[in-house]
Amino acid sequence: MTTIEARRSAHQFDLGPARALVCRECGNEVPLAAEFACSECFGPLEVGYDFGKITRAEIEAGPRSIWRYRNLLPVPSDVQEHPNTDPGLTRLVKADRLAAALGVRKLWVKDDTGNPTHSFKDRVVAVALAAARQLGFTVLACPSTGNLANAVAAAAARAGWESVVLIPSSLERAKVLTTAVYDGALIAVDGNYDDVNRLATELAADHEDWAFVNVNVRPYYAEGSKTLGYEVAEQLGWRLPQQIVVPVASGSQLTKVDKAFRELGELDLVEPTPYRVFGAQATGCSPVAAAFQAGHDVIQPVKPDTIARSLAIGAPADGPYVLDTVRRTNGSVEHVSDEEVVEAIRLLARTEGIFAETAGGVTVATAKKLIESGQLDPDAETVLLITGDGLKTLDAVQDKVGPRATVPPSSAAVREALGL
Amino acid sequence: MTTIEARRSAHQFDLGPARALVCRECGNEVPLAAEFACSECFGPLEVGYDFGKITRAEIEAGPRSIWRYRNLLPVPSDVQEHPNTDPGLTRLVKADRLAAALGVRKLWVKDDTGNPTHSFKDRVVAVALAAARQLGFTVLACPSTGNLANAVAAAAARAGWESVVLIPSSLERAKVLTTAVYDGALIAVDGNYDDVNRLATELAADHEDWAFVNVNVRPYYAEGSKTLGYEVAEQLGWRLPQQIVVPVASGSQLTKVDKAFRELGELDLVEPTPYRVFGAQATGCSPVAAAFQAGHDVIQPVKPDTIARSLAIGAPADGPYVLDTVRRTNGSVEHVSDEEVVEAIRLLARTEGIFAETAGGVTVATAKKLIESGQLDPDAETVLLITGDGLKTLDAVQDKVGPRATVPPSSAAVREALGL
Repeated sequence: MTTIEARRSAHQFDLGPARALVCRECGNEVPLAAEFACSECFGPLEVGYDFGKITRAEIEAGPRSIWRYRNLLPVPSDVQEHPNTDPGLTRLVKADRLAAALGVRKLWVKDDTGNPTHSFKDRVVAVALAAARQLGFTVLACPSTGNLANAVAAAAARAGWESVVLIPSSLERAKVLTTAVYDGALIAVDGNYDDVNRLATELAADHEDWAFVNVNVRPYYAEGSKTLGYEVAEQLGWRLPQQIVVPVASGSQLTKVDKAFRELGELDLVEPTPYRVFGAQATGCSPVAAAFQAGHDVIQPVKPDTIARSLAIGAPADGPYVLDTVRRTNGSVEHVSDEEVVEAIRLLARTEGIFAETAGGVTVATAKKLIESGQLDPDAETVLLITGDGLKTLDAVQDKVGPRATVPPSSAAVREALGL
Repeated sequence: MTTIEARRSAHQFDLGPARALVCRECGNEVPLAAEFACSECFGPLEVGYDFGKITRAEIEAGPRSIWRYRNLLPVPSDVQEHPNTDPGLTRLVKADRLAAALGVRKLWVKDDTGNPTHSFKDRVVAVALAAARQLGFTVLACPSTGNLANAVAAAAARAGWESVVLIPSSLERAKVLTTAVYDGALIAVDGNYDDVNRLATELAADHEDWAFVNVNVRPYYAEGSKTLGYEVAEQLGWRLPQQIVVPVASGSQLTKVDKAFRELGELDLVEPTPYRVFGAQATGCSPVAAAFQAGHDVIQPVKPDTIARSLAIGAPADGPYVLDTVRRTNGSVEHVSDEEVVEAIRLLARTEGIFAETAGGVTVATAKKLIESGQLDPDAETVLLITGDGLKTLDAVQDKVGPRATVPPSSAAVREALGL
């Protein structure tokens, strides 16, 4: 028995309300462990819970972070005592000016750029770290092309863990710097993201103390996305929105927001009012939108070609579950061009003062398209998820925005430039 | 009578608890207005208050932003009903790993990178906007070289106001983009920051509806910095820290944190325990540290030459008040080299997962120097203010950090690179 096996077998995991891992395909249940695929049918495993009674007051009295929802997550009850990035409780912004521009009545923007490394990935990584600590791991790892790399390197640094982050060597210098600064083991791989992903799976199999957040602890990691749904409901005053637009990469986030809304209803934390879930993709990587529009159940993989790199997953693992969710809730999946993405980034910035990364542009542009095509009801209250920060994807806007004028240092020159 | 004069004279300003503007030099009081210099002695004007009774419970029941402190700020009681960026309530991080590295017992990092445009400037601009709206202004403006430009352009966009932002034309492309994206009137001036600043003063005199946040509405703007002090005290469980290290540019922030701590004590919101305030500057722009160390009361202006550009104010307006504050509280002002700044950015990142801009590096490096020189008590609880984000000053670290290795796409190559 290796050290880690001994540690794991001796240890009673405290993963809070988590009961077991449940196969999403065949329903087979296995004990909580560092597993991600069903041994019966190879379907993906998901965390199943025994929640018990949870009250609004209990949550509201909790910390100002995702840990206020600890009794709804696979983390120990003392999770906030261990060093972690403690993300969450980001702003829900009432977006009246954007609403007017889009022609809808009541619109909210959930602004996840306020997280510690400025994307929603801090949520999933924080939950992965908390669960990985219980499961006996000692190294935090991931393959990534950006936001996830930042979040893993920062969380590991904060916890005092080693990290191993694998990136394609072609990654933009800014994204390399914002990961490398945390001083983990950042390894550039001469290959594309598929190569990097394959290496992660191989290394996870060989190094039993390495928690690849989105590979061998993925079931726990993915649950972190539920917190976006919980926060939206709490910040609306404990009720569900009528419509929500969510960007789709692997598709996990969209399905977890839906899971969060259902759980809140089942636990009597909100009235289980109907809601519609919409998925947003970039045309250059829109396999889920294509399957939805063709009425298919199977996703045909694509080779991504879009500026929205954080959504550029050509073979989205949770794509079929996205289709289930949007069909069940009477939503849809749409896609928008890179030009529309850039225009939408600018629209959100000039109407609400929020500078989103390209994925946020996809969400706003998709909302616009859904309204124009009559799929999204302009009279129903709508929430848009902005999951990452424009500071990380400056390239997208660099040819479109700049100073209105460059003038000599005189106030007359400034006035003239302003047409005064 | 011009339109704006008519609007102003007809209007009873609601600036909450603000009573008058008070000269910091001669004590002369004038009615609340868009004034910034004393008509008697040309001293700087500051907001004076009649607070009345304020309770912790009232504050805790308020919004999750600086507006929970609205009864301590020159803003109307319904401030949160008007569109603004609603910054604040950023994380106070218990920094045990940084504490161990620095050799202190109890250390906290106030991480203001979580604000809407990722610096403390969102706080001062939000208060300036709220006050400017009451004072009858219709355009939000500033001269800036970075963080302030972002904050003004974003807040104006959110409010639906026009903005005029003046920058030196030599400003880095990234900072230009992160301002221009909000689509206000961004004007690049062929000149240095002094030229830009002079233009702002000229234009403020000529355009009575333009609120230059750091010029003609500066007394209100500056009060926003108090919220950093309020939050530290509330997040510590309604008590004051024993020591706090604050970066010094104009010096306003340091004096306002002190003002916040004093107010909380006077209002019985905290026990008025003694605290020491320390100022942090970069050696390449350290006029306040020089005056402190020489025992002078007057600041000798310098020509800035440091990578910490957000602190590069060679003639700091509030320098004398910084000297008063640190002397009164038994603190000091220290300065650190650009090399120490970069090392400190990296130290904070690898111990706590927080990536600060150069100003944050100045704060951490100064804390280290203060500890090593025995000025800061390693057994007393200490707070460091991190006021801006490393994503905006990537240049500072770009030659120092990077991937540990670049390898071919094989797991054997990754293991070899990691020495396994």
